[in-house]
Amino acid sequence: MRREADLGERQGRRFFFRNGTMDFDAGWVLGYSQLGGLAPGEVFECLNAIKDGDPDSWVQAFAAMAQRQEDAALNDTTSPSGNRFLAAAVAARAAWHLVDPGSDAAHRLHDQLERCFQASLAASESALAALEIPTSVGALPGYASAPIDQPCTAAATWYVVIGGGDTFREDLYFFGGARALQEGYEVLLVDLPGQGSTPYRGLHFGEPTVVALREILMGLRDNWPSARIVLTGFSGGGYFTLKAIDDPATAARIRLDALVASTPVTDIALLLQRGMPKILARRPYGLASRVATLVAGRMSKAMHRAIAKYQWQFGTDWIGGIIPLAAAAGVVEASNLDVPLLALVGVSEPAEADRQAREVFAEIAARQPASRMVNFERWTGADAHCQVNNLGLAQDTAMSWLADVLGPPRQAMAVRARGDGGWAT
Amino acid sequence: MRREADLGERQGRRFFFRNGTMDFDAGWVLGYSQLGGLAPGEVFECLNAIKDGDPDSWVQAFAAMAQRQEDAALNDTTSPSGNRFLAAAVAARAAWHLVDPGSDAAHRLHDQLERCFQASLAASESALAALEIPTSVGALPGYASAPIDQPCTAAATWYVVIGGGDTFREDLYFFGGARALQEGYEVLLVDLPGQGSTPYRGLHFGEPTVVALREILMGLRDNWPSARIVLTGFSGGGYFTLKAIDDPATAARIRLDALVASTPVTDIALLLQRGMPKILARRPYGLASRVATLVAGRMSKAMHRAIAKYQWQFGTDWIGGIIPLAAAAGVVEASNLDVPLLALVGVSEPAEADRQAREVFAEIAARQPASRMVNFERWTGADAHCQVNNLGLAQDTAMSWLADVLGPPRQAMAVRARGDGGWAT
Repeated sequence: MRREADLGERQGRRFFFRNGTMDFDAGWVLGYSQLGGLAPGEVFECLNAIKDGDPDSWVQAFAAMAQRQEDAALNDTTSPSGNRFLAAAVAARAAWHLVDPGSDAAHRLHDQLERCFQASLAASESALAALEIPTSVGALPGYASAPIDQPCTAAATWYVVIGGGDTFREDLYFFGGARALQEGYEVLLVDLPGQGSTPYRGLHFGEPTVVALREILMGLRDNWPSARIVLTGFSGGGYFTLKAIDDPATAARIRLDALVASTPVTDIALLLQRGMPKILARRPYGLASRVATLVAGRMSKAMHRAIAKYQWQFGTDWIGGIIPLAAAAGVVEASNLDVPLLALVGVSEPAEADRQAREVFAEIAARQPASRMVNFERWTGADAHCQVNNLGLAQDTAMSWLADVLGPPRQAMAVRARGDGGWAT
Repeated sequence: MRREADLGERQGRRFFFRNGTMDFDAGWVLGYSQLGGLAPGEVFECLNAIKDGDPDSWVQAFAAMAQRQEDAALNDTTSPSGNRFLAAAVAARAAWHLVDPGSDAAHRLHDQLERCFQASLAASESALAALEIPTSVGALPGYASAPIDQPCTAAATWYVVIGGGDTFREDLYFFGGARALQEGYEVLLVDLPGQGSTPYRGLHFGEPTVVALREILMGLRDNWPSARIVLTGFSGGGYFTLKAIDDPATAARIRLDALVASTPVTDIALLLQRGMPKILARRPYGLASRVATLVAGRMSKAMHRAIAKYQWQFGTDWIGGIIPLAAAAGVVEASNLDVPLLALVGVSEPAEADRQAREVFAEIAARQPASRMVNFERWTGADAHCQVNNLGLAQDTAMSWLADVLGPPRQAMAVRARGDGGWAT
């Protein structure tokens, strides 16, 4: 259940799954069962069909589950369709995780993810609605509980969720979106360039990721001058959210009220470099690394699939190339950060992530004493990367801290027509 | 994750837990994580510490988790205490499951279960409050969301949950109690003679179990003449609930509005006899069976512990003796049953349970066409006994059927002072 300290080892062990130990991906899918979608019994029905080290068996098991869930949502009248559609979305999402992103199967799974997730929102009369968010680097897919492109003077509290290298906007529902809505926040979930399906649009990780996030936050603030804005970032989002507000002029315009990051990191290129198997990250990037990639690809089908996905997200044909691309977005200027921070850190995080989190937390806490760092021990079951093995505890912790720092959240009920599966514009 | 068809084999394989397959007890605890308490990561933190076939290692792992959770609930201010206390209760309950029920450790774990569960109710401002329910066979421990011992003319809808041979009143919270409260029902959870901690009071399974349930339901109806009453039974409760209303005079006085049973069975003695290893159940009950028990006890520590618990619940020193004691309560007179029934049946149930459920369902459905039988296939993850591997789906199914049959539930808000952790009397 714990994320391995070394990214390469983690990927190489994606299917190390026996006698009670669990790999990160399996633990992640199981972790979602706390919050809806697939139940533990359904997750194990899939996991029991998987062959260690064979990503195709993973894809087949979860794709079949997605189809059964969607069929049941459409045809089985013995239970409400809302959670069946959500289960189908989770299963399609899990299947996509280890598919070749350029394949037809990947496109079909992605369509199913969006179709079923949105059907679930409609069936459960959620206030969340899908939207396209225009930015200077391209339009981005998101979900929001109220319009963000129209002026509103309501004193609402916005809860913005940003993911990392392995998230779709639908994942952000599980990383706090659903909980925040339930607690009374207005919610915005968005895939930045490189995230979710955006590489299908020709958008990739790098500087545009940060540019887009800054524009979205400035736009939200401009339209909602009286709102409070909480920004939350998970995995790579722990870097993007910090980077978005490390420019004083931008930060002054956004006027962020609180930041939650798991894990807050300041140098994503260094993190990737230290996490990647040494031969792949070797400088200068050259033939040796390219050969090593091919070797590594033969060593583990699952690792090969993961590498293909990261290359696709960064718009490169070479895994070593993601490091300079990540570096292009820049190191976070920690001395410019001035907003209360809740830093969530699992003890099973890579050592470098832990080091950067402690450093940036100390810097911010000196200026913002309401800041807190919570280190999740192994026994809490929240020690994995992004607390995927106990999302409930991470969200309990965030909600508790936000209530202390900001008081109770507010929703702008007046601007929304509830009950139609979305908001009126 | 599936319950073995043979009770003996199931018990013998309690710790068969490798490479993705799960035994029933582990699946049960994991199943609760859908509904609160221990998260998947916390459950696996315990399971990873367990040695196959060694019940003491199970007890130690969950007891240690219970203590850590209770300490955190009392001392850790970074998250709300409500779910921490609930997690402590679930862990203490899981530990108790394989402890010698007569030991000091069992008493300490039971005290911790009650203390932490009730602290969780208080912390979350639940309407549920602990109560003692007087009956002619003794006082019984329960939880209720409104007083049941005082007259009330409110048109509330009561949701009564009855468990089986492996449930405490706190388990009933997970078997529908929490969900029903959330959906707008008044909720009553009760341990009948033989269930939960009642053997500590000298109460055991048998005829008194049925007598007590009849009295409680008659008392509820007498005090709440305008209420609708939904009776739900899980595991052995699938028998007790049917037996409680198979006497026409009693049924006429209770005026039950709907019955949900997983699994509805009519002959518990036959079910036990067919499920027990043949040598233990051999008639006449004699020396051969007694010797076989000792042998079986040596064969598997976990089975030995399970046998000790069942003997304790039936008030006998011999496992074979539970069959005539179960038989004493009598076979259900199915021809007298006349209330809409939702029969929940997992495909991994023992064949005899499935057979009895189909038979009694056919009988009732002929008189009550609103009745439904839902058979949960393996892929639904709800195929295990009592749907422990997908409690959410079972509860979705029950709530959906009840809404069709009875319309929306009602709570008697006026008689309750909410927000004080219980109801005012």
